[in-house]
Amino acid sequence: MQTTTLSTLPDRPAPALQPAIGIYGSAGRMGRAIVDAIEAAGATLAGGVDAGEDPAPLAGIADVLVDFSTASAIEAHLAAARAAGTGIVIGTTGLSPHHQSLIDDAAADIAVLQTGNTSLGVTLLGILVRDAAARLGPDWDIEIVEMHHRHKVDAPSGTALLLGEAAAKGRGTSLLELRVDSRAGLVGARSEGTIGFASLRGGSVIGDHSVIFAGEGERIELNHRGDDRSIFARGAVRAAVWLAGQPAGRYRMGDVLGL
Amino acid sequence: MQTTTLSTLPDRPAPALQPAIGIYGSAGRMGRAIVDAIEAAGATLAGGVDAGEDPAPLAGIADVLVDFSTASAIEAHLAAARAAGTGIVIGTTGLSPHHQSLIDDAAADIAVLQTGNTSLGVTLLGILVRDAAARLGPDWDIEIVEMHHRHKVDAPSGTALLLGEAAAKGRGTSLLELRVDSRAGLVGARSEGTIGFASLRGGSVIGDHSVIFAGEGERIELNHRGDDRSIFARGAVRAAVWLAGQPAGRYRMGDVLGL
Amino acid sequence: MQTTTLSTLPDRPAPALQPAIGIYGSAGRMGRAIVDAIEAAGATLAGGVDAGEDPAPLAGIADVLVDFSTASAIEAHLAAARAAGTGIVIGTTGLSPHHQSLIDDAAADIAVLQTGNTSLGVTLLGILVRDAAARLGPDWDIEIVEMHHRHKVDAPSGTALLLGEAAAKGRGTSLLELRVDSRAGLVGARSEGTIGFASLRGGSVIGDHSVIFAGEGERIELNHRGDDRSIFARGAVRAAVWLAGQPAGRYRMGDVLGL
Amino acid sequence: MQTTTLSTLPDRPAPALQPAIGIYGSAGRMGRAIVDAIEAAGATLAGGVDAGEDPAPLAGIADVLVDFSTASAIEAHLAAARAAGTGIVIGTTGLSPHHQSLIDDAAADIAVLQTGNTSLGVTLLGILVRDAAARLGPDWDIEIVEMHHRHKVDAPSGTALLLGEAAAKGRGTSLLELRVDSRAGLVGARSEGTIGFASLRGGSVIGDHSVIFAGEGERIELNHRGDDRSIFARGAVRAAVWLAGQPAGRYRMGDVLGL
Repeated sequence: MQTTTLSTLPDRPAPALQPAIGIYGSAGRMGRAIVDAIEAAGATLAGGVDAGEDPAPLAGIADVLVDFSTASAIEAHLAAARAAGTGIVIGTTGLSPHHQSLIDDAAADIAVLQTGNTSLGVTLLGILVRDAAARLGPDWDIEIVEMHHRHKVDAPSGTALLLGEAAAKGRGTSLLELRVDSRAGLVGARSEGTIGFASLRGGSVIGDHSVIFAGEGERIELNHRGDDRSIFARGAVRAAVWLAGQPAGRYRMGDVLGL
Repeated sequence: MQTTTLSTLPDRPAPALQPAIGIYGSAGRMGRAIVDAIEAAGATLAGGVDAGEDPAPLAGIADVLVDFSTASAIEAHLAAARAAGTGIVIGTTGLSPHHQSLIDDAAADIAVLQTGNTSLGVTLLGILVRDAAARLGPDWDIEIVEMHHRHKVDAPSGTALLLGEAAAKGRGTSLLELRVDSRAGLVGARSEGTIGFASLRGGSVIGDHSVIFAGEGERIELNHRGDDRSIFARGAVRAAVWLAGQPAGRYRMGDVLGL
Repeated sequence: MQTTTLSTLPDRPAPALQPAIGIYGSAGRMGRAIVDAIEAAGATLAGGVDAGEDPAPLAGIADVLVDFSTASAIEAHLAAARAAGTGIVIGTTGLSPHHQSLIDDAAADIAVLQTGNTSLGVTLLGILVRDAAARLGPDWDIEIVEMHHRHKVDAPSGTALLLGEAAAKGRGTSLLELRVDSRAGLVGARSEGTIGFASLRGGSVIGDHSVIFAGEGERIELNHRGDDRSIFARGAVRAAVWLAGQPAGRYRMGDVLGL
Repeated sequence: MQTTTLSTLPDRPAPALQPAIGIYGSAGRMGRAIVDAIEAAGATLAGGVDAGEDPAPLAGIADVLVDFSTASAIEAHLAAARAAGTGIVIGTTGLSPHHQSLIDDAAADIAVLQTGNTSLGVTLLGILVRDAAARLGPDWDIEIVEMHHRHKVDAPSGTALLLGEAAAKGRGTSLLELRVDSRAGLVGARSEGTIGFASLRGGSVIGDHSVIFAGEGERIELNHRGDDRSIFARGAVRAAVWLAGQPAGRYRMGDVLGL
């Protein structure tokens, strides 16, 4: 199998080949982690912009942009990137269908990669879940469990839904029809083909996800454990380095890894 | 520490000391498993009674009774046991508050042990959960996850609730005030002191339970996995052998094990 | 993706199309479980043969054979199958290189499928492990943990080694060079690219396997839990039904499932 | 149950009651983490000393000392603490029997707490393991699995051995007689009463420990996951604050928590 391998170690490209990376949301927790990851990877930081600042100049000097800001700023950032012809990795969460259609529009002119999880491990897990679901019959029940810290306000996590979509895709359908978000009370026997979600909250857990395929007499579990937040920043930098060389279009994390 | 140890191997008391065990619900799946467990333990089977049969004669000849029948038959079985002065282990599920008060009444005259789970391992886990909850401050968040086969119709499982009660007891309060049964949507940050439940369903899983204590930077997990249904029958027989020698009163599985 | 799906429910082919399955080692635990699985699948039992009996007549009347006997009987069973031109599924363990070369020879004339684990879930897990190993760089450390009942005499389990081979294959090498069987004492830092094994023994555990890929700040775990021994018999019957229609050659469980 | 609860949040004693904490090994990774933990807990830092510096002045001005230096420096640090009559928490690893007897000697004059793991969660887990082992018969097989990062050079971890000692103590014996460090090859069936260890290494894992009690048909698992190194520093500060008020003697982490 000829494929790109996923290394957790930073790539160290020759300096002449390194894209200069600009950050929208550079003062936030993820923004600062991305600055560290750029340095650790031996890549180049073009600069950073935060709320209240003009995004256009950065778009003009960067080879590629990374956005971990807020949903409300996305429209202006996309416009700046498009005007400058600069590709952009979007990891900002809470995007509406309207934001998604803005991204689709922008992708006609520039390379855009939007994702709910920039970790390399979660990206690979999604592929494995899709493949497993495609190969296991509907009598293998699928359950997805996630655990996050006590401050997380929404459930299930975006990553759990991303894994559910991967499972549904493997079964040739969409998650919308199969999703069961919780069970409490006299819920009756499980309906074949559904995908169940359960969300645990507690402590300072960064993010654990399990996809369980439960068959008659046996179970397959595909798990990811996020032990350190740096995985998201490293994955975002890797995605940015990759995206800098791509033509206009809309991309996913799996594309970065050749999956 | 002087205590009874929990052996998964059957006790083999001297025949002269063995109580003769009668079974209400002997034709059901658990009833038949109990017949096997009585044989494996070298204990004595007094006989079995099922729906439509008179429960009185068995109560008269048995030294102790085990009931895995249906909630609707409990009243007649208790009356027969009480009339004969014979102790009874009740593992039948779906009992109402009315049934519980009937059991309380009967316990004035005979020894009664009622439980939602006769497994020795779950009984010990409940003790460990209570002790851990008593020693960990309220900033350790408690989450309880259970997985059962796809045919189970209610959630959370009775055993998960039993473990939640043990945790609440350790914290000097009752589960009623702390229980959060599911999370879906924009649920907000976790409330301190609550106990969350999540129920997974799939395949033929007999019963897995996890109690997670999530603190800042670390987690303690106390798990039980039921690999074989025989654990419930073995525990019920052990409870019956123990109950045969007890005075009137209401007992729990923990009493059997000296916990 | 067009592929056969793995169902844990028995296939129920039209009776006219069902092969008649003969069992070598029919009185053993697996042999008896296969008889049950044949019945549950609505397939046809051609008959059974055990130690001391002539294997030739059964090979003559069966459409396909399943062997869960002893290594010492394999040579005679292969000869009988070959003489009759009947395919054979071999799940017998403890085979030597000599036995393997006898199987290679037989595969010139008949269809032979030899495997250390007939469970569908383990077969799929092996594929997922190979794919994950191919896509993750050597800085993702691979560890394989298995747990079996207290009576198992060898370590690591054959299935753990099978999963290790799958991981090594994904990395384009062989397990022989990478295998580290245990760690105790002052063993030094982990060598990049090695595959570590750990074996737990206890209770009545049927067989749990975990393959852990540990990267910087994140982990992927691919697990299989065997909850019931019937999975091996069901998989063997499924393999036999499939093998009955194949030309001469040597096959693996993955072939049965189109993986 | 009247007991101190284990909070992961820092205690915030009234300033007048706060002991001033001195650190031996303040420039090391743990030393710096302890400085942070002292600040987070609202406690007072008396100062720090590192290799090549005279330990006596710090012992004279601190109310209590914390030592995360090197084994070779322990003798001088104990002498300084003893001369000043100041209690000391020792978390330095790699201590020999000679170091242990020096500690015993010092404990005649000052309060000394020496431990291989200052995490509150591991301390509680040890208590739960001891209690579970005391209550489960020898037919429940005990296995201990730990996973640490790829740079760890010894196996099993000191914490795994600490948990093994707790299990052995629960069974009224010592680990020395029961310990089985690894399994590879034709090891034969498990010997009743032994405690097995398995060590996994990979990635950047801070420290996971599982103690498995495997009985016939069921398993109890008691797990600890260290998600963040800060847990060790927080526990050390808590131990120091507690030790400041104690008379001469040798103490354990369990004493701090009233376990």
